[in-house]
Amino acid sequence: MAVYTQLGSEVLADLIAEFDVGALVSAKGIAEGVSNSNWLIETSGRDGRGARFILTMYEFRIDIAELPFFLGLLDHLAERGCPVPRTIHDRDGRLHRMLGDKAVALIEFLPGVSVSQPTPAQARAVGGALARMHLAAADYPGARANGLGLSEWKRLAEACGAAGLAKIDPKLAVLIERELPMLEREWPSGLPRSVIHADLFPDNVLMLGDEVSGLIDFYFACTDITAYDVAVTHAAWCFDGEGRSFDPALSTALLAGYEAVRPLSIAERAALPLLARGAAMRFTMTRSFDLMNTPADALVTRKDPMAFARRLAFYADPANAAVFAAS
Amino acid sequence: MAVYTQLGSEVLADLIAEFDVGALVSAKGIAEGVSNSNWLIETSGRDGRGARFILTMYEFRIDIAELPFFLGLLDHLAERGCPVPRTIHDRDGRLHRMLGDKAVALIEFLPGVSVSQPTPAQARAVGGALARMHLAAADYPGARANGLGLSEWKRLAEACGAAGLAKIDPKLAVLIERELPMLEREWPSGLPRSVIHADLFPDNVLMLGDEVSGLIDFYFACTDITAYDVAVTHAAWCFDGEGRSFDPALSTALLAGYEAVRPLSIAERAALPLLARGAAMRFTMTRSFDLMNTPADALVTRKDPMAFARRLAFYADPANAAVFAAS
Repeated sequence: MAVYTQLGSEVLADLIAEFDVGALVSAKGIAEGVSNSNWLIETSGRDGRGARFILTMYEFRIDIAELPFFLGLLDHLAERGCPVPRTIHDRDGRLHRMLGDKAVALIEFLPGVSVSQPTPAQARAVGGALARMHLAAADYPGARANGLGLSEWKRLAEACGAAGLAKIDPKLAVLIERELPMLEREWPSGLPRSVIHADLFPDNVLMLGDEVSGLIDFYFACTDITAYDVAVTHAAWCFDGEGRSFDPALSTALLAGYEAVRPLSIAERAALPLLARGAAMRFTMTRSFDLMNTPADALVTRKDPMAFARRLAFYADPANAAVFAAS
Repeated sequence: MAVYTQLGSEVLADLIAEFDVGALVSAKGIAEGVSNSNWLIETSGRDGRGARFILTMYEFRIDIAELPFFLGLLDHLAERGCPVPRTIHDRDGRLHRMLGDKAVALIEFLPGVSVSQPTPAQARAVGGALARMHLAAADYPGARANGLGLSEWKRLAEACGAAGLAKIDPKLAVLIERELPMLEREWPSGLPRSVIHADLFPDNVLMLGDEVSGLIDFYFACTDITAYDVAVTHAAWCFDGEGRSFDPALSTALLAGYEAVRPLSIAERAALPLLARGAAMRFTMTRSFDLMNTPADALVTRKDPMAFARRLAFYADPANAAVFAAS
């Protein structure tokens, strides 16, 4: 949550002039993104009536070679009517440019706010938007391996070590030691795959009332089991932030919204409990690793791994088997 | 440069509904302000055609009892044609509201960008805008003592101590020890006073090309010697950031722009060299104190006091006496 790079207005104005969007009128660094710097840019617009964009500078993590996958995906989905921000091409048709040694991209600004207390109507809308995104992505030619899949959870667990995990919380170490071998053994194969968002938290959804006005931040998007994305979204939307209480109304609405657009196959439905344990494991492990490897005084907020360990325990509890039962 | 408080979109929507500005459409935390959190807010507007605002939450430093002075000043200046953002009154006519234990205000959004390499034409425009602000403020009924005047410089110097200053830079301690008693002895009385901005750095001026589209961040505004504001603005605009090189063309343009609107009296002109030493002292001392009292790992950027110590040495050097000579 920071702007890592200061850009003078003269540099920004020159950069904006490389796109056919009018002249720079305003630029505000915005407090979003942990591996990017972002500016909300206003220009005079092609028609002089003003236009707004998000300028993203890729600071960490992202391999520039992968940008065409992410930025091309936005174009592909937007063309098919998904509420995702279009990538603005520069005058030479490029999706991103270099500014010094850093890549930058200009992306459409979308209205809407991220909800922090979703209602069932909103969860239903998000389920529908996710399903439409999956359908629209079906013929996307790009592919990208999931860098945060099962083998990475294992690697992170080894890097943390049982003692390190126990230091965060003794229950955490026990849970990982039990769940990880099970996931390795049981992880499904043969389920439908597609491009997935893989990080569709409320922060990454813009809403106007009960309508989804934007799906954003596709920088974890990858090719993986389609229903795994449903599981990630379920884990992200159907609990309170701390993972202490599950909201069955949000769960029912999210799944119904999804299935109204893209019905799950019997095999997908049957796999959801396991996929949800995987989704909870993914965030438990990345947060555990980040907690152990980010200094307490760093600029980024360290998120509590236990918020997802609790979800993991919830999904693993046979008492909750009915959550994903076909309605 | 941070957003200190997280505000859920539901809380924000309720807050915005207290103003007659339409419904909340978008909210982005912006990376501006060191003692405030700020959001760029978009609403549907009173006419449904959209409107933008800055929502400010006062986090530190500012005494809520002083908000009417700052927010009323914006209204006063805007009514007189100055390019400052109006304060939006809530449905009950209030200039600020409380959200929990923090004060918040909704302020007009103004276009424009802050220049980092000003041109003489831009410096001239800023001089003119400052002079118009001084004239427009003449009949503002509010008054506020300058909390960062001569007596505060002394207090800060004592708090830092000669040894502390010497640790930053030996030249710094020598300079303060020489200049501070001189400023105490020679500080002018009897010069015209008015409300002044007191912090008109390029960051606090929005420009569209060579025009000033906004004067912002009035939270150091106070009642003091009018020409001292010219001196502060001079110190802020006519040097490179490090204070190593003075740009005579910017200086000439800034002063000419000011005098084209509000000619300086002979006494004001004669006092400028001393006022400029005071202005440089003000930022040298606050930066020295902040450097010694802000942990290296804090969220705020610690600014180099030597950048203003160099300006102080420049203004104190008799070889530069001609800078403020009447043209």
